[in-house]
Parts: sequence; structure tokens; C-alpha cells
Amino acid sequence: MSFPYLDMNDLDFMLADWLDWRGLAQFPAFAEHDEGTFREVIALAEALAQDQFAPHNRESDQNEPRFENGRVVLLPAIEQALDSYREAGLMAADFVTEQGGAGLPTLVSSAVAACLSAANIATCGYVLLTRANARLIVAHGTPAQIETWAKPQLHGRHYGTMCLSEPQAGSSLGDIRTRATPDGEDDLGARYRLRGNKMWISGGEHEMGDNIVHLVLAKIAQDDGSLPAGTKGISLFAVPRILPDGRRNDVTLAGLNHKLGYRGTVNTLLNFGEGDGALGWRIGGAGQGLAIMFQMMNEARVGVGLGAAALACRGYRQSLAYARERPQGRPLGVKDPTTAPVPLIAHPDVRRMLIVQKALAEGALGLVLRCARLIDEEQAAPDEAARQSAGRLLGLLTPVVKTFPSEMGLRANDLAIQIHGGYGYTRDYDVEQIWRDNRLNPIHEGTTGIQGLDLLGRKIIGDGGASLQQLVGEIRQTLTRARAQDRLIAPADSLQAALEAVLSCVERLQAFGDPRLALQHATPFLMAFGHLVVGWVWLDKALAALAAQGRDPDYIEGKVLACQYFMEWELPRIHPDLARVAAGDDLLARIPEGGF
Amino acid sequence: MSFPYLDMNDLDFMLADWLDWRGLAQFPAFAEHDEGTFREVIALAEALAQDQFAPHNRESDQNEPRFENGRVVLLPAIEQALDSYREAGLMAADFVTEQGGAGLPTLVSSAVAACLSAANIATCGYVLLTRANARLIVAHGTPAQIETWAKPQLHGRHYGTMCLSEPQAGSSLGDIRTRATPDGEDDLGARYRLRGNKMWISGGEHEMGDNIVHLVLAKIAQDDGSLPAGTKGISLFAVPRILPDGRRNDVTLAGLNHKLGYRGTVNTLLNFGEGDGALGWRIGGAGQGLAIMFQMMNEARVGVGLGAAALACRGYRQSLAYARERPQGRPLGVKDPTTAPVPLIAHPDVRRMLIVQKALAEGALGLVLRCARLIDEEQAAPDEAARQSAGRLLGLLTPVVKTFPSEMGLRANDLAIQIHGGYGYTRDYDVEQIWRDNRLNPIHEGTTGIQGLDLLGRKIIGDGGASLQQLVGEIRQTLTRARAQDRLIAPADSLQAALEAVLSCVERLQAFGDPRLALQHATPFLMAFGHLVVGWVWLDKALAALAAQGRDPDYIEGKVLACQYFMEWELPRIHPDLARVAAGDDLLARIPEGGF
Repeated sequence: MSFPYLDMNDLDFMLADWLDWRGLAQFPAFAEHDEGTFREVIALAEALAQDQFAPHNRESDQNEPRFENGRVVLLPAIEQALDSYREAGLMAADFVTEQGGAGLPTLVSSAVAACLSAANIATCGYVLLTRANARLIVAHGTPAQIETWAKPQLHGRHYGTMCLSEPQAGSSLGDIRTRATPDGEDDLGARYRLRGNKMWISGGEHEMGDNIVHLVLAKIAQDDGSLPAGTKGISLFAVPRILPDGRRNDVTLAGLNHKLGYRGTVNTLLNFGEGDGALGWRIGGAGQGLAIMFQMMNEARVGVGLGAAALACRGYRQSLAYARERPQGRPLGVKDPTTAPVPLIAHPDVRRMLIVQKALAEGALGLVLRCARLIDEEQAAPDEAARQSAGRLLGLLTPVVKTFPSEMGLRANDLAIQIHGGYGYTRDYDVEQIWRDNRLNPIHEGTTGIQGLDLLGRKIIGDGGASLQQLVGEIRQTLTRARAQDRLIAPADSLQAALEAVLSCVERLQAFGDPRLALQHATPFLMAFGHLVVGWVWLDKALAALAAQGRDPDYIEGKVLACQYFMEWELPRIHPDLARVAAGDDLLARIPEGGF
Repeated sequence: MSFPYLDMNDLDFMLADWLDWRGLAQFPAFAEHDEGTFREVIALAEALAQDQFAPHNRESDQNEPRFENGRVVLLPAIEQALDSYREAGLMAADFVTEQGGAGLPTLVSSAVAACLSAANIATCGYVLLTRANARLIVAHGTPAQIETWAKPQLHGRHYGTMCLSEPQAGSSLGDIRTRATPDGEDDLGARYRLRGNKMWISGGEHEMGDNIVHLVLAKIAQDDGSLPAGTKGISLFAVPRILPDGRRNDVTLAGLNHKLGYRGTVNTLLNFGEGDGALGWRIGGAGQGLAIMFQMMNEARVGVGLGAAALACRGYRQSLAYARERPQGRPLGVKDPTTAPVPLIAHPDVRRMLIVQKALAEGALGLVLRCARLIDEEQAAPDEAARQSAGRLLGLLTPVVKTFPSEMGLRANDLAIQIHGGYGYTRDYDVEQIWRDNRLNPIHEGTTGIQGLDLLGRKIIGDGGASLQQLVGEIRQTLTRARAQDRLIAPADSLQAALEAVLSCVERLQAFGDPRLALQHATPFLMAFGHLVVGWVWLDKALAALAAQGRDPDYIEGKVLACQYFMEWELPRIHPDLARVAAGDDLLARIPEGGF
């Protein structure tokens, strides 16, 4: 039976025909690989997803982590799946060989993650955190730190967490109060004692593996004992659950969060330093914590978008299968009740709900994979100019790749429920769970509102338009190529109109002078911008589909029609919003306190 | 403490200043009431909502109904709340005095239902079903049937259900297979034995009260033993759980459905006639079942919209309270990290999420209450022409009042979660539950897709435009009045543009000739039409707000700004969709089987 949660044929098309992974294999960094090894890795991921990740997806939702006799108890199947994943060598797949990795492109490891996330997003939570943690230590730690904490995450049985938020400081990290007091120095570097409370710590406490490496943001106390204000005083510390000498560190579980979804990923409130202070070793320079963390944030945000896109794809595949199987009603205009009922997919409104899902889910996954390739280009393109231009484009697209899949994936999942009718509202089908799971994605790793400010404030207005110009150049190239194909002229016109509308909006916003006026509608701008970007992704994919060799003609036709649907129905909705954003309407500020 | 789930001041404004309940009290049918008694009833509902319904809302979600020792066990607080509700006389509040009712207008009983639904939608499920069941028997039953089954639901301790769907027949009722075989006649009318399986039966089995009266759709077997095909052969039967002689009827619980939300409302699969056949008495004529059921459907659909609007309002009120309390971050442009954090409500994007909720939730509740008044006008206006015109408008608006609150209420609830950030994703706050609860509303009592076909196929194209013309007349009157107010000229222009776009779209659709071509985009049309209607509701409410005496000026300002926001941001989004609907684009039909 083929993998039911992701269209593996479509994934192959995107990687091979659209994103040219053969070209990627020409980069010296990836020279030991070719299309054959890429495909083998993905086949391995598909098998793992099917055999190890998918089977406990529902069980893990229904039996959420619990605190029992002083321990956090997880479903045993979670650890078993994670062990299989590590044993298959996937944890370090895209790390360089010096770190014991397989040196695979991020594009390939992202395709792996898409398979696994579609099968079981909550179990993937541990993978995402552990890999991000190890990557950060590899990039910024000393050789001893890498040896002690990063490699055991990649090859051994250590797990990683990220400890940023505190109960009073979520989006506002400058307000954290966790305090680090110098405590000498040893082989592992500058040592500190940490005291503070960290909230929303996924994977924060459990009995899996040998150790948990917490990466903790904290402020080093100043000479007068006070903490520096704002984000500049923040440093990063590795705080292992088990100390190098085998004792438990002073890190206490203060509570488990009971969530709407993603339940298999245990989420905790941790107290650091209830006793003598939790021992932590600084990673990178003092005061560099947030800068280091933000280098990793791009990857984490692509990771969030990837999970959201994978869930959108899963809902699409499952509601498509249901629509093909379930007989209900008769075609419009057929009055004879003795005729046999037709499958749901025969009804126009069900077809609409399917093509919307296809346009959003495959568009979102395309965007994510495009960004994964940009990570490879930024890190490994032989040409310096290519690396820089990939980095610029990736920076601009990061808030989009985080947000579009999260927000639109949720809309897709809503339609997956709707196609199932009453059955979709029961826990006997998967679609209600993936909708709940996906609801986390617009929140964690920076809310949609934060992404909007990042895009418009930092990446567009703040950058003087350089990144935007590069995107515009790419879009115009795609438009030119599309106009040479009869079937893509109308979609290209729609994309062109969207591009002009975004550019004219940006011009107006820049002219305001006052960034507060420009930024008040940053979220609607982000959503409109995201549609432009995904429109570009679709047009580019449709071009690749028309040029592809040896693919099923109906499959190609579906690609072109999904592109057309996105351009005709989804994309034009941005125009009224952009007009309002550009008008600089200050209605939000004028609502009196008693007016809500 | 004021009621935290619904703005009671706003409710009072809508009833008194906008919908003129004093005028309603002039109808002879309501002559024994006045504004004072209306307000007393609503104060009683508020107290009941606060004291009896709200306290077990979360508990009832976390302890869903379970099957134990042969019985369905519900949380005892549910029965206690329902008893208080009955004892307060609210079950029969809007029934005529001959049935022991208080003869209150539907407008007032709808305001009561809004309070209770905002407090606990799942416990209200039993109320909605029991009242609808009793109303149907009162309208179509014999005096003996009314005495035996309706009055005990209104005044005693009987509960009611509606048994329509079967496992193989959800939206497609013509395909039901439950069979009724004649079994003589007695004091209660024509008696039958029923055999079949009914799915999605809310309140289908429990130990509350003295009896459950199932109203069951079934087909009377023809002489050759076969069942008539299609909907025309369907009849309606009262099938009590406990027979008049005290024995259990042959109705068996086949299973409980485990749902995403609305968990306190037990939902069942029932087998009728596993033994000798379940005894049922026909209500109304043979073959009249669906027609009778559909008379009740208008009320049920207004009821669904009401519940959805109440949940939207609850999410708005709770996220507003949270946004006022929770400090986080600093205003845009404030760089000094030593300044104190501001409450969430100071951030433009949070204000946006609040005003969107206000525009959607209060717009939806306004629409529902407007329709409740139409029910009163249809049933009790002294003037025959007024009754007919109210009936026409109500018929047209029924699919809208079912759908707009359901779909847009969900969007509002999504924003209520987002304002709460990570906390909104936990079960420690209410917003995740109301989002789950609300997800049922686009499904039950006719899915959104079914409502679209009803609106466009039956109520607009099928009716030759008579109902639409009446709505257009009402909207034009409101437009004329609005243009006399400086502040409402721009919103009126936006509404006018929406009206012209809808009318020109309808004209195009009518010109297609082939209804299949017109109906393929019935759902996007319904959503656009719903926005037009709610735009009208908002403009009309803003007019009433500007004319209101003795209300807080900030409150009035908030009304006008919410109207403006809806007209500037929400309403213009319909134009691109209407353009596509009018284009008669047949893309959906052209997607090949292998193209999905």
C-alpha cells in the first residue's frame, strides 16, 4: 500500500523535476551523493514513517504524557520510533561528515522530515528540538562542548531542548529573569549557576535516553547583582539534566502543560536552581545568546512551516481518500432516487474543498522545500555571490515559510474535516487531530504577529529593499518563462498583478516615514505577501510540470489546474487587503478603551 | 461581577434600541408582556447561565458521557442545570399559553439561548432538541400526542431527540432505510413497528428525566414489502424510550460517538427494532415526514447560528479580558527595555484580532437576533402582508444565519486562541474548547455546502428572485438612512458596492440557464452573500447606535468603528470571489481523477 499521508510521487516531482536535486549533488559539499542515494534516504524515511511513526500517532494523542511517581511517563512507542530514527542515521543526516553526519543536503533532510511529520508530528517534536540543539552547539560550542553534548544527541541517546520563554515573557524575550551567576571554569568552559523558571519547554523532562541537554537563555548578573535590561544582556547556556559526574542537575519539573494537540510532545514548566543553582556552561560569548539563538531560528521556522505543510498534505490525502470511497447523494440535476449514490468526489463543492486543500498544502510544501534548497545554497553553493543571494532571499522568506503553511494549513485541515461530515468531527478519524495539532504552528517559534513585524519591519523596510528586489527579480524571471506557455499566461497575469500590488503597497508604506503607521497592519501584509510568494511557487512548479518527462498526464494536468485555481481564486483576495494596508488606515488606534 | 461570556449591555442595545422589542410587545400575541418582563426574563437567563450552566462547561468537556453497566452516565451537573432551566419556566417560554407557555417572543427566547449557549453550549444541546421536538409535536400532533409527549417535554421531565441520519445517509436523507410496518391504531394514533439504525443522535440515550421521545424519520413499507425511493416516501414517528405502559421500547444503544467538542451532549448510534420492532406513532400524514421536519429546520438552523454566534462572542469577551490583563512587550518604537511592559491590548495586531472578532461575533449575533424577530413577525405580526414578507425574508436568510456564524465564528475563535499565545493552546484556558465546540456548527443541521445549494438553488434561482428583491428593498432603505449620517457614508458606499456585485452575479448565474453551472460555486456565493447580509446588519446597527439615548459614548464609538472595520476590511474581500462565481469557471469539473 502506498504511503497514505503524503503523495510520494509529488514529493519526487518537486525534488527531481522542480528543485533539481541533481544540480544540488554537483555542489562539492554534496559530491559523494547522487539522485540514487537521495531516493534511498527518502524511501527509508517513508518506511520509518509508515512502520514506526504513524502507528502510535492517535494513541499518543489519547494517552498524553503524565507525571507518575516522580517521573514523566511517555508512550513507549515514542522512544522506540526515535531509536529507529537514530539507528537509521537520520538524526545526523545533514550534518557534515566531521560531525559523523552523512553530509546530505537540507533539501533531502527536509523531505525526510515531511514524511515523518505527516505520519506523526508530535513524535517529530523531539527530533526537531534535538537536531536544532545539536546544530547550535556544533556551530557555537567548543570542541569539548560538541563532544560532550552535541555528538551524543546526533549519535547517542541524548535529547535536546530550547528554553527561551518564561511565564511572564513569551514573545518579549528581553524581559526574561533567569539569572546566571559565574561559578568558575572547567574543561567544558565558563561555568554558571542558573536560577529561574522556563515555560513551554517541549521535551523538558522524560525518561527517554541517557540525558537531556537544555539550551537556556539567561542573563548574567552584573556586578551590583542586577540583571541587564533588554535583549542585549542575554547569554546562552548548556544545562544538562545529568551532570558530567553523573549527578542530577538542579533542574526541577514544575508542571506539565495540557495542550490542545501535539500531545505526544511533552511540554513542561521547568524550575532551574531551586537548590544550589543549576550548573550551566556558556555557549558562545557573554551577551551573544539571542544572536546565536536567532541563527538557529531560521531553521526552526522553516521546520515549523514544514510540519504545518506536512499536516496540510496529510489532511488533503486522507479527505481525498474518503471522498473517493464514501457514496453520498446524487449529482446536481439527477432527480431519480432509484439511481445509485455517487462518491463524494463527484460533487462540485467537495471537489472545491479538495482543490483548495491541494493548492494550499502542496503550495505550502513547495515553499518549504524551496527554502530548504536556499539553506543548501546559502551554506554550500560553490559561488560566493550565490551563497549571499540565497541567504538574502532566505531571510526574507523565513517569516513567510513559518506563517503561510501554519495559517493556511489550518484552513486546509478545516476543509479535510468538512469533507468527512459528521465522521470528521469524531475521534474515529484522523482529521480532527491534525487540525488540533496544526493549531500550534501559528503560535510557537514566533507568533504570526511577530512574523509580520519581522517581514515588514526588519526584512523589507529595515533592509532598504535589497532582499525584496532579489525576490522580485526571481518572480519576474518565472513570469517571463511562464508567458511562453499558453496555459500559463492567465496565471502569470494574476501573479503579475499581485506583484505590482505588493510593490505599490510597499512604496506607500515606505513613504509614511513613521514605521508605527506602516507596521500597524503588518499581519495582513504578511498574509498577502505570503500569497504572492506561494503564487510564484505554484507558477514555477507548473512550469516544471509542463516540462517534466515520464510523469502521468493526469498528474501534470492536476498540477496546472491547481496552479490556475490558486491564481484565480486564492491570490486575487489579497487586493482588497493590500489596498487597506496601503491606505495607512489608523482605525485600530482610534478604538477607545470602552469601545471593545 | 458582570457576565464574562456575553456583553449584556450590547445585547440590551440590540434588543431595545435596534430591534425595537417595545414594538414587538404591541403585537396582540405578546400583549401581556412589556419591556420590563422581557428584561426580567433575560436577567433570569443571565443568572442561570452564570450559576448553573457555566460552572460545568469545562468539566463536561473533560468527562464525556460514558457507557457503564448498561447505562449512559452523564455528569450530574448537566441534569441539575436542565432542571433549573425547566423550573424557571424557560423550556416553554415562547410557547403559547394554551400549551402552558409564557407566550414570549422568539426574539426574547433567543436572547435567553444566547446567554446559556455562551455559558455552556453542550448542555444547551438538550434544550434545543427538546424544545424543537415539542414544537414539532405541538404543530403536527393530535391532542393526545401533544398531551403524552409534548407537554411532558415542556413542563415535565421528558427529553426529545431528532433521528434523521443513518450511517449510510447523512446529507442524503432520501437514502434512509429505516422501515415502518403498520401495527394497528390506538388512542395515540396510527401505530407502527420500526426497524433501522440511526446515526448522530444527540441525547439519544441517558438516564436523565422520565423519558426520551425520539422523533424518527422512516419509510412506510409498500404492499410488496419494498421501501419507496427518495424523500417523498418518508414519514415521521414518535418513538418513546419508555412505552405508555411503562415497558422499555425496542430501542437499543449501539454506540457512543466520541467527538472533538460539544462533548457534554451525548451523541449516539441507535438501533430501532433489534427485537420485535420499536413501537412508533405517526406524527402528521404518511409521506409528510420530511416536509414536517423541514418546517422545524428553519428554527433549528437559526438555533445553530445562535450557538455559533454565542461561542464567537464568548471567545471575543474572554480574549478581550486577557488582552487587558496580560502585560507583554512594549509599543512599537519604544526601544528602552527598562520601561514597563504594556498590556497586550496596546499592540496594534492584538487590537486587530479583537476588532475582527467584534465585527464577526457581534455581526453574527445581530444577524441571528434579526432572524429571531422575523420569526416573531412571520408568526404574530397583526398584518397578513407583514407576516408573508417576514416569512419570505426569513426563508432567504435561513441558510445565511446557519452558515455565517458557524464559519466566521470559528475564525473569530481562532483569533481568541491566538491572542492568548501559548496559553491559548492549553486546556487551562477556555478558548481551545470553544474553538473545538464551534467546529460542529458548519456540519450539523445541513453542512455549509448544503446551505449554499439551498440559498442559491432554492431560495434565489428557484424562487424567481422574489425573496431577494425583498432583501434588496430592505438594504436600500438602510442605505438611504445611512447616507444621512456623515460617518456612515463611506460604510454605505462599501455596502452598496457589495450589493451591486451580488446582484450582478445573480443576474449572470440566472442567465446560464443550466443550474448545474450556476450551482457549482454555491458555497463561495453563500459566503459572499452572508457578508453582504452581515454588512447590512452592521450598517443598521450603527444607525441605531448613533440614534441611541443614554448609552456610553465610547460604546457607541466602538459600534461605529466595528461597522466601519467590517465594511473596509471584511466586506471588500467578496469581490474577487463573486467575480469568479459569475465567470462560471468550470475548472472544478475539469480536474481528472488522477489530478488530485
